[in-house]
Amino acid sequence: MENTENNKTKSVAGEGGYMLEDVPHLSEYISHLPAYVNPLQDNPSYSVVKQNFVNEDDSVTQKVYFESDEVLACIVTCGGLCPGTNTVIRELVCGLHYLYGVSSVLGIEGGYRGFYSKNTITLTPRFVDDIHKRGGSIIGTSQGGCDILKIVDSIQDRGINQEIRKRGLKVAVVGIPKTIDNDIPVIDKSFGFDTSVEEAQRAINAAHVEAESFENGVGVVKLMGRYSGFIAMYATLASRDVDCCLIPESPFYLEGPGGLFEYIRKRLKENGHMVLVIADGAGQELITENMHTIDLQQDASVNKSLEDIGLWITQKIKVSSVLVLAFDVAKSDPTYMIRAIPSNASDNIYCTLLAHSAIHGAMAGYTGFVVGPRINERRNRVVITDRMWARLLSSTNQPSFLDPKDVVEAKKERAQPNQLLSGDNP
Amino acid sequence: MENTENNKTKSVAGEGGYMLEDVPHLSEYISHLPAYVNPLQDNPSYSVVKQNFVNEDDSVTQKVYFESDEVLACIVTCGGLCPGTNTVIRELVCGLHYLYGVSSVLGIEGGYRGFYSKNTITLTPRFVDDIHKRGGSIIGTSQGGCDILKIVDSIQDRGINQEIRKRGLKVAVVGIPKTIDNDIPVIDKSFGFDTSVEEAQRAINAAHVEAESFENGVGVVKLMGRYSGFIAMYATLASRDVDCCLIPESPFYLEGPGGLFEYIRKRLKENGHMVLVIADGAGQELITENMHTIDLQQDASVNKSLEDIGLWITQKIKVSSVLVLAFDVAKSDPTYMIRAIPSNASDNIYCTLLAHSAIHGAMAGYTGFVVGPRINERRNRVVITDRMWARLLSSTNQPSFLDPKDVVEAKKERAQPNQLLSGDNP
Amino acid sequence: MENTENNKTKSVAGEGGYMLEDVPHLSEYISHLPAYVNPLQDNPSYSVVKQNFVNEDDSVTQKVYFESDEVLACIVTCGGLCPGTNTVIRELVCGLHYLYGVSSVLGIEGGYRGFYSKNTITLTPRFVDDIHKRGGSIIGTSQGGCDILKIVDSIQDRGINQEIRKRGLKVAVVGIPKTIDNDIPVIDKSFGFDTSVEEAQRAINAAHVEAESFENGVGVVKLMGRYSGFIAMYATLASRDVDCCLIPESPFYLEGPGGLFEYIRKRLKENGHMVLVIADGAGQELITENMHTIDLQQDASVNKSLEDIGLWITQKIKVSSVLVLAFDVAKSDPTYMIRAIPSNASDNIYCTLLAHSAIHGAMAGYTGFVVGPRINERRNRVVITDRMWARLLSSTNQPSFLDPKDVVEAKKERAQPNQLLSGDNP
Amino acid sequence: MENTENNKTKSVAGEGGYMLEDVPHLSEYISHLPAYVNPLQDNPSYSVVKQNFVNEDDSVTQKVYFESDEVLACIVTCGGLCPGTNTVIRELVCGLHYLYGVSSVLGIEGGYRGFYSKNTITLTPRFVDDIHKRGGSIIGTSQGGCDILKIVDSIQDRGINQEIRKRGLKVAVVGIPKTIDNDIPVIDKSFGFDTSVEEAQRAINAAHVEAESFENGVGVVKLMGRYSGFIAMYATLASRDVDCCLIPESPFYLEGPGGLFEYIRKRLKENGHMVLVIADGAGQELITENMHTIDLQQDASVNKSLEDIGLWITQKIKVSSVLVLAFDVAKSDPTYMIRAIPSNASDNIYCTLLAHSAIHGAMAGYTGFVVGPRINERRNRVVITDRMWARLLSSTNQPSFLDPKDVVEAKKERAQPNQLLSGDNP
Repeated sequence: MENTENNKTKSVAGEGGYMLEDVPHLSEYISHLPAYVNPLQDNPSYSVVKQNFVNEDDSVTQKVYFESDEVLACIVTCGGLCPGTNTVIRELVCGLHYLYGVSSVLGIEGGYRGFYSKNTITLTPRFVDDIHKRGGSIIGTSQGGCDILKIVDSIQDRGINQEIRKRGLKVAVVGIPKTIDNDIPVIDKSFGFDTSVEEAQRAINAAHVEAESFENGVGVVKLMGRYSGFIAMYATLASRDVDCCLIPESPFYLEGPGGLFEYIRKRLKENGHMVLVIADGAGQELITENMHTIDLQQDASVNKSLEDIGLWITQKIKVSSVLVLAFDVAKSDPTYMIRAIPSNASDNIYCTLLAHSAIHGAMAGYTGFVVGPRINERRNRVVITDRMWARLLSSTNQPSFLDPKDVVEAKKERAQPNQLLSGDNP
Repeated sequence: MENTENNKTKSVAGEGGYMLEDVPHLSEYISHLPAYVNPLQDNPSYSVVKQNFVNEDDSVTQKVYFESDEVLACIVTCGGLCPGTNTVIRELVCGLHYLYGVSSVLGIEGGYRGFYSKNTITLTPRFVDDIHKRGGSIIGTSQGGCDILKIVDSIQDRGINQEIRKRGLKVAVVGIPKTIDNDIPVIDKSFGFDTSVEEAQRAINAAHVEAESFENGVGVVKLMGRYSGFIAMYATLASRDVDCCLIPESPFYLEGPGGLFEYIRKRLKENGHMVLVIADGAGQELITENMHTIDLQQDASVNKSLEDIGLWITQKIKVSSVLVLAFDVAKSDPTYMIRAIPSNASDNIYCTLLAHSAIHGAMAGYTGFVVGPRINERRNRVVITDRMWARLLSSTNQPSFLDPKDVVEAKKERAQPNQLLSGDNP
Repeated sequence: MENTENNKTKSVAGEGGYMLEDVPHLSEYISHLPAYVNPLQDNPSYSVVKQNFVNEDDSVTQKVYFESDEVLACIVTCGGLCPGTNTVIRELVCGLHYLYGVSSVLGIEGGYRGFYSKNTITLTPRFVDDIHKRGGSIIGTSQGGCDILKIVDSIQDRGINQEIRKRGLKVAVVGIPKTIDNDIPVIDKSFGFDTSVEEAQRAINAAHVEAESFENGVGVVKLMGRYSGFIAMYATLASRDVDCCLIPESPFYLEGPGGLFEYIRKRLKENGHMVLVIADGAGQELITENMHTIDLQQDASVNKSLEDIGLWITQKIKVSSVLVLAFDVAKSDPTYMIRAIPSNASDNIYCTLLAHSAIHGAMAGYTGFVVGPRINERRNRVVITDRMWARLLSSTNQPSFLDPKDVVEAKKERAQPNQLLSGDNP
Repeated sequence: MENTENNKTKSVAGEGGYMLEDVPHLSEYISHLPAYVNPLQDNPSYSVVKQNFVNEDDSVTQKVYFESDEVLACIVTCGGLCPGTNTVIRELVCGLHYLYGVSSVLGIEGGYRGFYSKNTITLTPRFVDDIHKRGGSIIGTSQGGCDILKIVDSIQDRGINQEIRKRGLKVAVVGIPKTIDNDIPVIDKSFGFDTSVEEAQRAINAAHVEAESFENGVGVVKLMGRYSGFIAMYATLASRDVDCCLIPESPFYLEGPGGLFEYIRKRLKENGHMVLVIADGAGQELITENMHTIDLQQDASVNKSLEDIGLWITQKIKVSSVLVLAFDVAKSDPTYMIRAIPSNASDNIYCTLLAHSAIHGAMAGYTGFVVGPRINERRNRVVITDRMWARLLSSTNQPSFLDPKDVVEAKKERAQPNQLLSGDNP
């Protein structure tokens, strides 16, 4: 039975319309779990809304399973930086405090590892008051040791949650998925995405200015996106200055008819300059192939640098086309400037919704779930047979680089249910 | 029969999920209207997507009722400025050109009036290439003579459309609603809204810095919103620095228990400073009442300035509270800085979707419709019994300023169908 | 003798070339004042520079008259907000700590009044580490009670300093002049000025977009500058979008030939739109005259609002020209957005120089002085016979609005020594 | 005689105080050169200023040697992009037109090469009206073929000028030096510098956020500066977030006591994170040494990538310190984002001054000169024995990495005349 549950999605209702689906509840394994009246019912801010709770038989918010005094909330941030992390922290702290009267909130320092090795920081509304205006994570994070996907997996698979359950602990575990690439398997839109696209557009704009100012200028902008090209796709659509956008979902090749170099030459001939946006994970197979042809006895750090697709393709362009045209290639990698900026207004609001959903769900006794709109189980990837990608192709006029085999495969994928971000509602 | 049609909504399917509903089609009044194969079917960018057109029996995009060569497209912009106007113009021009091969596009200068009194501008992809990076409208606009609501009404009521129909002209009329206040009756989210909220947040931030630096400092920020408080609400939620947000939908009063002044005094006592955000149209009835008490013989321009709620309330605060506390009041009105900025990345993408929807619909022979997500017929207003407003009240801790009568009324409103923006999906 | 001293400038050498001139020294009234070796001589950062101290017989930095342990430094900020205030505070704290080992630094809360009525804040390098990224003043300020000019005067006139001297106290008093208007009588360039011009330019840009989008659109931007028009002049020169710039130094009139209205009409006829920048203090005499013609029995708050030149002139333009042309007037007042922003890079560096100069001077035993480049005794005003103003006139093509009498007067002024900002070296 | 001239500086008076020094004049080699009344004398904007021309016997502006109608002005931009290039172009076009009535202005497309191979663009005030708001160069530029230093040299050495002279042509050649690194041999401050420092500070800020969020996080920011470290130095001073700044002028070493790695370990131990700013040209000799130790048979593109000091040092840090501490290194290279942005307000004004100086000088018959403040003949480099560098060392607390030999050498350099930027006047 446990097994079958592992294969199901565990989602929870966000405040306004997200659906609750098979989310484990503390009462399932703790007997005689006392329930309390939800303090929100006395909150004057919610007094008008409150009336509706009853009508709608909204069990999530009717009762809570924790008393304000007994709650000790811990917040940990893991993985790479992402705009909005501090806003989520702020809203968790303020939401717990102002909505449910919870005053004991700890920040676990330095990511997942911080649970066993580091100090904790006491988080108060006063302490977090201004942190949403700063990038980064005030409680620190760590990469490697704790992969965001693994944690989501472990929550989903009840790695953490199961252990807690086995011991009968009254602990609610909630995840707010965070990935700047938008490639989280379980939700459709990750916080910080809007902000990242905005900043990525700035880099594209700079590359465009650069390319335009030189004869046969080629601006290459590498953007985040190891497994999915959402940032590259959206930034391309937003900027309107891109001539070619390469993403992991859409294979391409360099040489020969229909290849990238042919297209670059064509564009330079027509316009005298071009901008190429490339997601981190695009064309990795090309690099791998290529690596076999180079002497492998060299310094590991050299290999490492070659795996940077932006660097690699910039050098390839320089070398390959020198026979045909002389040109200038400018390479930009705004990754770290994007990761570190504070979230913009729309992400701030979105972070608040996510934080509040997490709080409401946990207070209502649910555990082992992640919050976010329209939860799905597959890794979130750009659907290249979708209209959004078609719109991009049409806006850049780039070839699809697809051969008939790819199209067939793509259509199969298309048959599966659609996602918010790859769809048309922004 | 005409009458019944007037009472119905005329919407059209956007590219990704918007619904077509009772939109008039040229073939309804032009007999033997020839149809052509949609050139998009040969567009390589849409080649993969194209396959789906057939499967989905997508009549909108299967056939077109205009040949590329015969099309003369006219673009006119009306009403106040709004971020994204130039992006919409750009995408109309580029979309017509690259998607449907339409090369005759004219811009009508100076708004609606330009149809009879002004020159036109030839719009080419090259001419509009960079305009999305500039604020304003490159073809000019005008206020007063042509009210956005009237145009939408006239399109909806077939004022324009009917006349065209009567004469049997092969003309498709499409509206892309624009209002920085988000108070358009027929759609849920207007373009430029995200950008406006972002910029409004900047003004709030400045007011917060100002207020914080002075003993009993009060920062007053007036934002756009004559009939609805969306920008004020969203900017407040995004900034987290606001102590009180006043909008037209939520009545309030100044003096006495539960009034605004009491709240201001309380906040100043607690924190030593506060920020007040007020939408343009909030408290207009208070001003009107007040005007009767002043001598009316004065200069009209003086009256005019009193109608500025930001100015009025700033002066009221200064005068009223001087007995209790000495304080500094700083008033900011960022209206013109917000209106004039270029649209941000997410609005750029949204503008593209709207422009493409308009083009696809018109080419497919539909007319007399407006584009936008989730079309509804009521004026779009903040629903103060909704959770988003509750969340705002909870985030600012301000009183609801509601008396029991208001609550009852609010609940009635609540019974009606919900809107996207006032709901929880951002 | 005291009297003659009052009439002289008391300047002090900044680090790199400012001149020391008649600055009082503690040793003048405290006998047997012990001197110590300057700890900077052991500071490895200054070790190479240090060698030069000896060669140049640099008495300022050779000896200090305070031991690190005995110093209690107090920082107070007065008057309106200005970009860079927090940077100056930060650099005073860090400079005292890292350069001279001074660890007791107090912030006096709430401006000058804070000396007798408020708490103090202990300022450590850690506490001030990030404050230069925030606008405002972390220790608060107050207006009215303490006028920046009065303080500068009182320091200059030895109001404070004399009293200290009379009592034989070992206290060094240093002022770092702050005024966003750049109208400080004793120095040439105030910190925050560059930042203010940058932000003012943003507002002008918005007004330009607005004006350009409407037929006969007039954008009016009111900028700070009660006594001098530096911000207006520099923002006008930087933006290149302004058609007319009005400053307190250059009188103008509205009606008749050569008047403002004639010029506005001319410009609208030529270009179809225009941007008018007006400094706070420009045309005040016009308002005063005008006030006599209105009924004075009205509400004081009404009068107050009329004194706003931006508002007043906007209404005058609307009324006066309605006979000739219909137009739209958009008025923007970015004052509070400008005051509250953090300082830009060049101001950050300038604030550091000022703070370090203050520290070095005080540690060296000087007192009763202000720091800044090229100290002069007259109120700093735009010299309208100078080339910078000519350049502005030429860039806007506006008339000089001068009558022969003004020119004669202007030339007299010209005879006096020139200022940095009104000169050509930026 | 030619030789002696080559060794002298050829400077020209800027409008406000720059000195004219041995600048060749057309009348020296064209006999009977007619002179005309300067049209500025009738320019109402300069009418007040004009009176002064006479008094000051200002020969530059009294007479001009070109009639408006006969002038054909050509503008060419060479070398890499730099903020402000378009502003200079704009002000040359507008200045020639509005100040001297010159209407024939051509832009040479694509840099120096454009003189023989490319088309020209007609530049009118209308065409250039908005270009100062865009980055890049609207007339294009080219690198390599034409080195800015070579051009300056050739103008100085009369390469171009001499040829013109030999043929007795009535052509005035003027250079406005441009280098984002501020390392121009003949002037003290290049346009675009302020803007570049501002943008560089943004990158440093992002690196700081990144570093702070990870345990032992090291942020590495590579900035422009192949021969001089001005941008690195000023951005470091402005941001206050940097722990170590490495520039070409100040040698350093990696291993051993007093080396970079020791300092990094120390800082990480103290603070848990650090930010390292490194100018392009810093430590090149270390890379060169290192290259000999690697197998040289590898792909040229690999070598190329190793020459990137930012990449190289990032990898060195990763490898070298792995024994002592585990840490995250984030590398940022904002070069192309800095080069491509529009100039800020203060640079806009500075560009205007430079453009006007060039125009006035050329119209007055001078030729073969460059414009700019305080012209000197040595390559402009950071003087590491100067107080500005000491201030940086003190602000970062980094070691000087100097050994006694370096100090002696540095002192010699110190003996030579000082520069504006390395001094204290910003």
